[in-house]
This record gives sequence, structure tokens and C-alpha cells, in this order.
Amino acid sequence: MGNTFGQLFRVTTWGESHGGGVGAVVDGCPPRLKLTEADIQPELDRRRPGQSRLVTPRQETDRVQIVSGTFRGRTLGTPICLWVKNEDARPEAYSEMATKFRPSHADYTYFAKYGIRNWQGGGRSSARETVGRVAAGAIARKILHERYGVEILAYVKQIHHLAAAIKPETVRLKKVEANPVRCPDPEAARQMIALIERVRRSGDTVGGVVEAVVRGVPAGWGSPVFDKLEADLAKGMLSLPAAKGFEIGSGFAGTAMTGREHNDPFRARAGWVWTTSNHSGGIQGGISNGQPILFRVAFKPVATIMRPQLTVNEQLRNTTLTGRGRHDPCVLPRAVPIVEAMAALVLADHALRQRAQCG
Amino acid sequence: MGNTFGQLFRVTTWGESHGGGVGAVVDGCPPRLKLTEADIQPELDRRRPGQSRLVTPRQETDRVQIVSGTFRGRTLGTPICLWVKNEDARPEAYSEMATKFRPSHADYTYFAKYGIRNWQGGGRSSARETVGRVAAGAIARKILHERYGVEILAYVKQIHHLAAAIKPETVRLKKVEANPVRCPDPEAARQMIALIERVRRSGDTVGGVVEAVVRGVPAGWGSPVFDKLEADLAKGMLSLPAAKGFEIGSGFAGTAMTGREHNDPFRARAGWVWTTSNHSGGIQGGISNGQPILFRVAFKPVATIMRPQLTVNEQLRNTTLTGRGRHDPCVLPRAVPIVEAMAALVLADHALRQRAQCG
Amino acid sequence: MGNTFGQLFRVTTWGESHGGGVGAVVDGCPPRLKLTEADIQPELDRRRPGQSRLVTPRQETDRVQIVSGTFRGRTLGTPICLWVKNEDARPEAYSEMATKFRPSHADYTYFAKYGIRNWQGGGRSSARETVGRVAAGAIARKILHERYGVEILAYVKQIHHLAAAIKPETVRLKKVEANPVRCPDPEAARQMIALIERVRRSGDTVGGVVEAVVRGVPAGWGSPVFDKLEADLAKGMLSLPAAKGFEIGSGFAGTAMTGREHNDPFRARAGWVWTTSNHSGGIQGGISNGQPILFRVAFKPVATIMRPQLTVNEQLRNTTLTGRGRHDPCVLPRAVPIVEAMAALVLADHALRQRAQCG
Amino acid sequence: MGNTFGQLFRVTTWGESHGGGVGAVVDGCPPRLKLTEADIQPELDRRRPGQSRLVTPRQETDRVQIVSGTFRGRTLGTPICLWVKNEDARPEAYSEMATKFRPSHADYTYFAKYGIRNWQGGGRSSARETVGRVAAGAIARKILHERYGVEILAYVKQIHHLAAAIKPETVRLKKVEANPVRCPDPEAARQMIALIERVRRSGDTVGGVVEAVVRGVPAGWGSPVFDKLEADLAKGMLSLPAAKGFEIGSGFAGTAMTGREHNDPFRARAGWVWTTSNHSGGIQGGISNGQPILFRVAFKPVATIMRPQLTVNEQLRNTTLTGRGRHDPCVLPRAVPIVEAMAALVLADHALRQRAQCG
Repeated sequence: MGNTFGQLFRVTTWGESHGGGVGAVVDGCPPRLKLTEADIQPELDRRRPGQSRLVTPRQETDRVQIVSGTFRGRTLGTPICLWVKNEDARPEAYSEMATKFRPSHADYTYFAKYGIRNWQGGGRSSARETVGRVAAGAIARKILHERYGVEILAYVKQIHHLAAAIKPETVRLKKVEANPVRCPDPEAARQMIALIERVRRSGDTVGGVVEAVVRGVPAGWGSPVFDKLEADLAKGMLSLPAAKGFEIGSGFAGTAMTGREHNDPFRARAGWVWTTSNHSGGIQGGISNGQPILFRVAFKPVATIMRPQLTVNEQLRNTTLTGRGRHDPCVLPRAVPIVEAMAALVLADHALRQRAQCG
Repeated sequence: MGNTFGQLFRVTTWGESHGGGVGAVVDGCPPRLKLTEADIQPELDRRRPGQSRLVTPRQETDRVQIVSGTFRGRTLGTPICLWVKNEDARPEAYSEMATKFRPSHADYTYFAKYGIRNWQGGGRSSARETVGRVAAGAIARKILHERYGVEILAYVKQIHHLAAAIKPETVRLKKVEANPVRCPDPEAARQMIALIERVRRSGDTVGGVVEAVVRGVPAGWGSPVFDKLEADLAKGMLSLPAAKGFEIGSGFAGTAMTGREHNDPFRARAGWVWTTSNHSGGIQGGISNGQPILFRVAFKPVATIMRPQLTVNEQLRNTTLTGRGRHDPCVLPRAVPIVEAMAALVLADHALRQRAQCG
Repeated sequence: MGNTFGQLFRVTTWGESHGGGVGAVVDGCPPRLKLTEADIQPELDRRRPGQSRLVTPRQETDRVQIVSGTFRGRTLGTPICLWVKNEDARPEAYSEMATKFRPSHADYTYFAKYGIRNWQGGGRSSARETVGRVAAGAIARKILHERYGVEILAYVKQIHHLAAAIKPETVRLKKVEANPVRCPDPEAARQMIALIERVRRSGDTVGGVVEAVVRGVPAGWGSPVFDKLEADLAKGMLSLPAAKGFEIGSGFAGTAMTGREHNDPFRARAGWVWTTSNHSGGIQGGISNGQPILFRVAFKPVATIMRPQLTVNEQLRNTTLTGRGRHDPCVLPRAVPIVEAMAALVLADHALRQRAQCG
Repeated sequence: MGNTFGQLFRVTTWGESHGGGVGAVVDGCPPRLKLTEADIQPELDRRRPGQSRLVTPRQETDRVQIVSGTFRGRTLGTPICLWVKNEDARPEAYSEMATKFRPSHADYTYFAKYGIRNWQGGGRSSARETVGRVAAGAIARKILHERYGVEILAYVKQIHHLAAAIKPETVRLKKVEANPVRCPDPEAARQMIALIERVRRSGDTVGGVVEAVVRGVPAGWGSPVFDKLEADLAKGMLSLPAAKGFEIGSGFAGTAMTGREHNDPFRARAGWVWTTSNHSGGIQGGISNGQPILFRVAFKPVATIMRPQLTVNEQLRNTTLTGRGRHDPCVLPRAVPIVEAMAALVLADHALRQRAQCG
């Protein structure tokens, strides 16, 4: 259980870091959508490790294959199985982890839950699982873009103490992709790159904040009560590896405002309604109000550091463990397409739900 | 859709602010649990408005009735229908809202979605909907307490700029309930009370942060991937009225730490495993690790202020609206039992899920 | 679990035979549908026991109350809670069943499953639970009729050995309701009535077959694979009390045909497609083909007979039990509106599902 | 939607007759179960066409690969992806079907629903989809057998007019597999084989009835109301290609009995409870009573016949079509392992559900 997301646009991911591959099954995709691997591969390429000198490369091409659900380049309405082979398996790099739990990884909790774990590269808890999400998310984005004109854009807002100055209203993809940290503030990006270099040399890691803006969502998506649009976004984002926080619109900072300051006044002209501020982040009462949806996700520094650490082994004896394997000092740049994909999965699902009940 | 929460311990809430009542149906409750209204009523009493001079009273006794699912004081394993009548209906207080959208309420978004809305007291978007959650949550808490020894405790951590100094490790219910703001730091509580009084007199509102600690959850609850324990907590919390943010463990502050600082070292003795710090907030890889679960929820200042505001009406014409109806300058104290109830719903569901797959 | 039906038009029933009442929560109903109790009550009246001299009366008016989800006579799109009080509780009639399991009832299996049971009138396993289904089904029928022009008609096809001659193509509601057994073949109806009288006097019971025809379903409702339209109909029908069999189109008799005889040839004229026979029963590959949907449900004779029977008690000792309580020698006439309601729930759900994915 | 079955033991199948393959993802499987391809392959071999001279061979080895979810021969508790390549693609055999709808196939209904279809071999509506079910069912059977001692056995009860005499109480697998029609009555089997030969030579097809007996299910599996055990079995069976009917226990024949005849008396000795007859088919009130579960499934003659038939084309013009492709005069023998697999999926799901709520 727990490997399926969505009610109507349903995604089930499967696969471990080491094994036959990773992938996803997408059920509920509307029929007749143009879809080939070329629609999905670019997003996987953005997600892939080893794209810049900032990270230790994992040499995988991560080629996606559409195994089912399309016919002559169009979706059939039947389940789309997406499959990416694992190629760069190096189980020997993980031999020490066969018996020791890495601190702040899922090694111990998986073992406590299941009594068994694939210790090679983290198995199911590996960030490699997000390959399936990104592949499925590429289909969701295509639907959102082609059928609703919705655009999703995420970027690095902060790394460690370095916060960028970015106007979400006007930021563009080109600016985000202009540097390897995916931060559209060039000056901050420069400092972030230098910081990551220093952190990498010290064998340590840093976290940060990804911000996302979604433009073009019409008023009316989302549900009252449990499946509020922000609730499903929060769930999607907190389900990402290393995510520790989520906020929408004014978020935690909004707790220091008064109601007078926080309320977003409505204005109208010629049948259009908008708000003159957007502390709500585009959602009110769980339902989109037509303004841009704005949210942020906090990612902790990832746990794999190249230093000795105190831990315990499977016999529950105290021991130490020195990190090995791939060292990725900062996953924030790669988290950007993952956040976008997850947002797309949430929104595509709610687009179909809106059509079902109120269409 | 969207009115049911949980996979195995399933809660469906129903009801509007004005109408025949509000309630919940709980499906999946284990049989033979001792349960009468006396187990539920105290939590509803904690949630009820009008308990102190701090808030404008809504004079409702909110008496819960167990309509089905028990027999001679024990659960049958069949659906438990919980019903609370609406008694203090004052639709005339809302007549202006029949045609105007209150800023930052759900009036406009409901209308955009459904083309119809119950404008009396906000209808389904009213905080009154949480009556059903709190009632169902009381059952979940009982299961968690009696069968697993789990304790859930929330309290006000911050109101507007006022932050309390609280050690989550040692805080106790008695301290929380010792003052009307439910803040276990007496000095901060005093200032918060004074602040709320000022805000109330000015017809404005303030928000804040509720913090929660869950003790006694064994290692192994939660799921990998989408239904991570923190993801379901995030969804549950962001589904609460006025919630704008969620963080677990180190949360947003953890983004300014390095991996070395953030990792929680494991230690063991005599078959017990613990961590010497708890930046993870009790969850790693989506699964509980046996340490206390710690999270925080940000609530914006509620939208109902007693001041004139710019808005539009149903004809999409610009107009102004002056707040009327109940003025609750700060809902944080009442949010405390609601946060606890929502956490209980998440945890009871995962307790059953753990038993199903791995029991 | 197990008390909710449907993916998008979701119905959760609750309540026991004796207790605060029975009812249902309908989630996912489209907004702005005209709906008052007057739309639901007639179906409950058709379902109610004691309508004719054929059955032992249970003196309940079964008045439905819409507790939530409507505003000024229209649906809000939020959950509709339907509630019918229990009025004719006679627990003393069941005192012997407090310790003995009635043969072929659910007494023993509930006890084996839950370790507890409400022995008054069968509790949750009572046919009274279908009150909630019929009430919810009335809403589903209204949607199907008003928005899609779909008509659902069921009738008694067979009681014990007496089979009626009925042309499903032309049968009308008026003929069905023309006699107390709801069999539109007047001669068969006469014999059935005489049979039921004899059976009643002997303290015994008889079963039979209900046939249903659904007209106006467009081609395209239903899903491939697991949620085939006939699969969901089969589940719905086998979930009814005393149901032992389901068949669609040619059903079991079709096993004695060859493919040449069984295949339904397609014909077309001016953009319309039909089949010249309907052995498929209106569904092919799980999806409606635009022809009338035809199915039959077998109901065993109900278990409550007024005779002494061998059984065991809660101490698992052999004993005998003589039936008491209400004696209903043949529930087939009352099963007719229940079959219709259940079919409506299945079809309304698939109507919304079709719109979500392919609309 | 519609490609997932089960609540806790969840199976999602994917794949078309022609394309990258067919398979399934199993979520919710308990951890630490011994599992390799060798546990699954034998069931696929039983399902495969071309095993005897009775059917036109499809030359596929149908080798299953476990792509994820196991580690060193044991399940991890994470999703198990099962994949079987398509090897014997002969799209040219279907070229006429590119524009014409085969009578009583799903060609027309898929087109009506989706506006697109994979006409090669029926695409998703092909019986080849059941490969995924059988593979997943093999895992479910293993759990049922190893952890609960449950045995599922199906066999051909009837082909066309030929009904076999079989005692479900005593039938054994060896007898079922002793002949190519999987009918444990040797004399009937001989006649069935002769009949199928004749039907094959005439280019026609025949249907029949598969009967199944499940032994060892303890009292207490299943749910009241909608998810009754027989309701889920009915859904599972009616979701199989060409299934037109389902009955449990006495089924349709039980409608000609009286309550006195039909009721199953309980008897007990030394803490064991049983019934002296089993008209209930092992289930009462939706919950197993500890007796063998007995049910039957009616399969129509499959639609692909080697004769010219009237039909329409995609332009909705009248035309004729002569069957081509594989001719399988009687699928009943192959339906046997499919029925068993589907029953296993239902029962494994309810085994976990029972543990979750009442364990």
C-alpha cells in the first residue's frame, strides 16, 4: 500500500534503486493525447544526477520506455506503463550498509517495519523512486498545458543560508535553467554554486527551499474538507525524499500578519474577478480562486555524508559508519523538476475531479 | 468527493454550518472497543467556541449522539454515525453575504466551483465542519491510547509575533489546559491573552502556530513513497481551515543546517534503539522510528474581521462588505484539539495499515 | 470498511435494525440538482414492509430526512446525509437470539468476525440496511433520468417454481406496480400471490428471480478490466441480502449457445448503431453498447421461518431455535425497488467516471 | 481507472495484446514471503494458449519477470512489478479489424468510449490481459496457502450442453489436470473433447460453466454490506472476459427451494461449528462461515468465429467481416486457472482486511 497517488489520474510507482528498474503505471489518462517517449525524456534528463560538476555523477542514461497504453503515438485511455532500467548498479559500494543503518536514512525504519530491506542504494527509499513520478508527471503536465493552459514552474529559492530575491509573478523557465542550481537570481546562484563546492569538498551536505508558481489554474479546482487543493499539494510535497516542510501563500510568515493585512480584496471588471494581493496563494477554502498558486517546500540536507557517524547495526549494537557511495552535496537543483512533477500529478487529478462532479 | 479521510480507519464528515447538523461516519473501527458519548463529548467541549471571554460566544451545547455502530457500550465493527445538531442558527446575520463574497473566505471559490453555495455561516466551509473531525478523532485517540499507548498533545506555540518557550519533550496536558490560550508557557500565555484582547477590540484577527508532539508511536508505522506518515500528517493539517503551513522535525529551520548537524545518530542498548537528536521529528523515510513525532502547523489570521473591505458580489460588480456575525479574534486555542484529532485520525489509520500488511 | 460503494458517486450507509436509525451519506453528487425529501420518499415507500396483506407488517413510516447537502431545494455538491429513524423497535422479540445463532442468518458469521453482535433484529445484517441504499439510489435515479434520460425498471420474474412471461423490451412501470408481487405478467402474478399465501400459512419462505432492464444508457459507460460495468452490477447485486446469483444478457443459458448463435450483429443507419439481438445484455467488454442493459438476480428464500430448527448457541453447544419476529414469506416484491436503487448507484457512478476521463 | 483490484492486496494490471508486454503491479504484499519467478510461472503455463491440440496455438512462452519488490528471493513489502513480454505479435492478422468492429467484441464499445482503439488483437480487451491477473494471483495463492492453509480449486463443470457429475467436496487437482479440458469427470471430459473438436472444425465456439471450491477459509473473512465476500467474488468473476453469470452456493437453483429446505443447520462439537448442508456456499451475510466456498461462473461462447458476420465499420456503414486470427473454439479449460487466480486475489485482500480491523 501507499504506492498509488491520485483519485482519477492515478499513478502507481514501483521499483528499487537496484533491481530490474523503476517505473510507474498511470491509470485514468484521457484518451487521444499525443504521447511518445520524447514528451517524457526531457523531464527525466532534468531530474538525472550527474548533469553538472556540482554532483558526483551516477552514470545512467535513464531512458524511459512506454510499455503500454499508447497506439501510434496517442494515449488509448488504458494504463500507461513507464519503465526505466537500472544500469549503474554498484551494490559493492553498499556492502557495509548490509548490516549497519545509515543515520537519518530509512534503513532502520524499513527494517523495523518489514523485517527485511534491500540495502543496496536504499532500495525503495532511494531518490531513484522519483524517476517514476517525474515520468508520470510529464504526462500530467502535458494534459494541464494542452487542455487547460496551466504552467508549472519551480526554482531554488534558498540553499542553506543563501536566499534568492525572486518575483514569482514574472519568473520564467529560461532564467531558472540558466544556471546549474536552477536559481533565477543570478547573483544568488553564483554564491550557491560556490557554497555547494565548499560543502562538497568537506564531505557534507546542505538543504534549502524550492518555490513553485502555478499559473493558469481556473477558479474551481479542489475540494472542500479533506481533499483541499493545498492539502493534496502538501501531501504530495511531503512525500518527496528529504522534504520537511510545506507552506502555501503567506505560509508561516503569514502568522505574523493580522486579518486586515492578510485578507485578499476581490476586484472585478467585465466578468473577470481577481484579488489585489495573493496571501492566499491562489487557494481559498481548498478551491482555486484563479490567482497564481504559490507554495514552498523545505528540504533538509540529505543524509549521505562522507564522514564517520555513530549508528547501530542489525544486531542493535552500537557501531560507526563512514559514508560511501554517491555524494550529492545538494539535491535542491534536482528537486526542482520533481516538485513540478508532483504538483502536476495533484493538479491533473483535480482537473479530472472537477470535470466529473461539476463539468 | 473529498469528504472521506483514511484508508482503513475511514472518516466521512458531512453537514453545513446551518442546516440539520454536522457529523461523521467512522468506518473500520475495531470491534469491542468501549465507547459511549462520554468518550467523545469532552473533546467537543474543548473545541467549542465561547469557552472563555476571549471569543464571541456561539451558544451551542454541541451534544454528540452516537446514532449507530455500538451496542451496549461497545463498538460493533460497523459504521459509527456521530451526529451533532445545529442549534444556534442565525441566518439573518449573514443576509449581506447572500450576494457578496467575503474576502479570503471560500464564498467565491465555492460559487465558482459549484454555481451554488449555502451562504449562511459559510455552509460547508465553516469551521463547524471540524465538529465531525473532532468527534471521530476522539474514537481514534481512544484506540491509540488503549491499544498502543500513544499520546497526542498539541498546544499554542506562537500567536502573531509572540512565540512561547516550550520543551516538547516534557510538556504535559495540564499545563496546556491551564490557561485559555492553551499555551503551556505561562508568561507567553499572559501576553497572548492581552494581545488577543487588543485585537478583538480593534475588530481584527491574528494567527499563529500550533505545535504537536506524539509520544509512544512504535517504529514501523507509515508507508514508503506517497503515503509517508509525514505526508498524511501534512495533508491532514493543511485540510484544516486557515492552515497555511506544515513542518515536521527541523522543518524550514532545518534548511539552514548541514547534513552533519542534521543527521540523528542512532544508539542502542539492550534491544532498544533511539536517536540522540530528533531533527527527523520521529519519522524517517515516511516511517516512524520510535522517537516522539513533532510537527507544527501555521494558521493565518481568520478572514472574518469587523471592518469594511473591498470585494465583489455575485453579479461580479465591485462593492464593499463590513464583517458581521461572530468575531473570533484568534482561533488558535480552539485549533489545538482539532490538530490533535486530525493527528489521531492519521495515526489510527496507519496503525491498522501496519497490522494489515506486517502484523 | 466495506460500507462505501462507488468511486465518484460515493454512498456510505450506516445503521442497525435497532438503534438510532439507518441512513446514508452521498458524496460526489453534482451540484444544483433539485432535491427534496419528496424525491426520495416514494422509493422508500415502495421498499417498506407491510404494504400489502402478503407480508407481516413492520409498522414504520420510514420518513427520510435530508440532514445536509442541500440549500433551498438544490444540492450543494457537498455530502448529502440521509437519515431514517428506527421506530418499530421490538428487541424483546429477539431475546432468544441473544444467545442462539439463527441458521443461514449472519448471526454466527458476525460473531466469528467481530466477537460481538447486535442480535436485535439482525443489527447491521438486517434488510433494514437497504433503506440507506434506496434513499441514495433515489438521488442517483434522478441524476440518471434528468441528465441522461436513463430509465431503470425491475420486476419479479420468478417466484419459486413460477416463472412469468415478460418481454423486457416493452414492460412498463405501471404494469409492474399493478399487483402486490410486482410481476407484470398478470396470470403469473395471480399464481404467485396464491403461492405466497400458502407459504405464509405454513411458516415457510420462498425465493425467486428479479429481472431488470435499463434503457437509455449511451454507448461508452463502463471500464475495461476490473471495473467492467457488468462486474460492478454483479457486485452491487450480490451485496444485497439473500442474493445468490447474477447474470447479464444470455447469462447461464447462454452457455448452451454457440458463438454463431450468441454473437450480436451490428447494424447502422444514419449514424446510429444497434445490434439485431441482445445476448450481450447491453454491455460488451465491460462497456455499454447503447442497447438495453438486461440482468437478473437470484434471491434465496429468506432464512427467518416460523419453525423449529437445529442450531448452536454462543457457547457452541447444540440447541434448537424456533423463528420469531416478523415473518416475510417472500421478499421478492420488496427487492424490486432495492435492485433498481443498486443499479442506479452503479450507473450514476459510471456516468461520472465517463465524464471525468472521456468527457 | 478501473485497472486496480483490491483494497489492501492491490493489483493493477497493464498492457495490451500487442505492444511492449502485459503485467501487473502488486501493492500491499506482506514482506518476507519467499517468492521467485518459479512460484508464478507454472500458473502462467496453465493459462497459456496452445497447450493442447484443442486450441490454435499462440506461440508465446509467456516468461514472467519479477522486476521489483523482491530481494534475494523474498518479498520486500514494496510493489512487485511483474512483466511478461509480448512475443507473438501478428498485427497483419488483424488488418481488417482496423476499420471494422467484430460483433460481440469490445471493438465498438472501446471506440465509442475512447474515440481510439488498438485494433491489433483486441488491445486491452484481449484475454491476454489476464496474464497479469494470473501472475498476481499466483502470489495471492501462495500467501493463502502458506499463511492460512487455504486451497482454491476450479474445474470445468459444463461445456455447451454437456454437464459433468462432480462432487465439489472431494475433487482433487490431479483429477482436474488429468485431461486437456480440465473436467474431473473423465466420461464427460471425453465427450467435451469430442464436442470441441467438432466445433473447431465448424469454425464456431462454445461456452460453459467453471465451478470452484475454496477450502480452508476460516469463519470471519468478508464484510457486511457492500464488500460482502460473495459480492467481491461476483465482481472479480464478472470482470473476466466472456463471463455472463455468477452464482454462489445454491445459486439460481436455490430460488426453487423453500426456506426450510435451504437453511443450513448449525452443529457443534468440541468448539468446532459446521453446517450439515451448504446451500449458503460457505458465506452468510457476506462473511465466511468456515464451510467450503462454492461458486460457479458462466462463460458465453467467445466471439471470434471463423465465419462471415454482419457488422458495421468505423464510418458506421453496414458491412461484413470474416473472422481471422486465432481460433479458440472453447476457452473454458484456460479459464480454470484464471478463475482460481481471481478468487485468490479476492480472498487475499479479505484476509488482510480481516487482520487490519479484527486481528
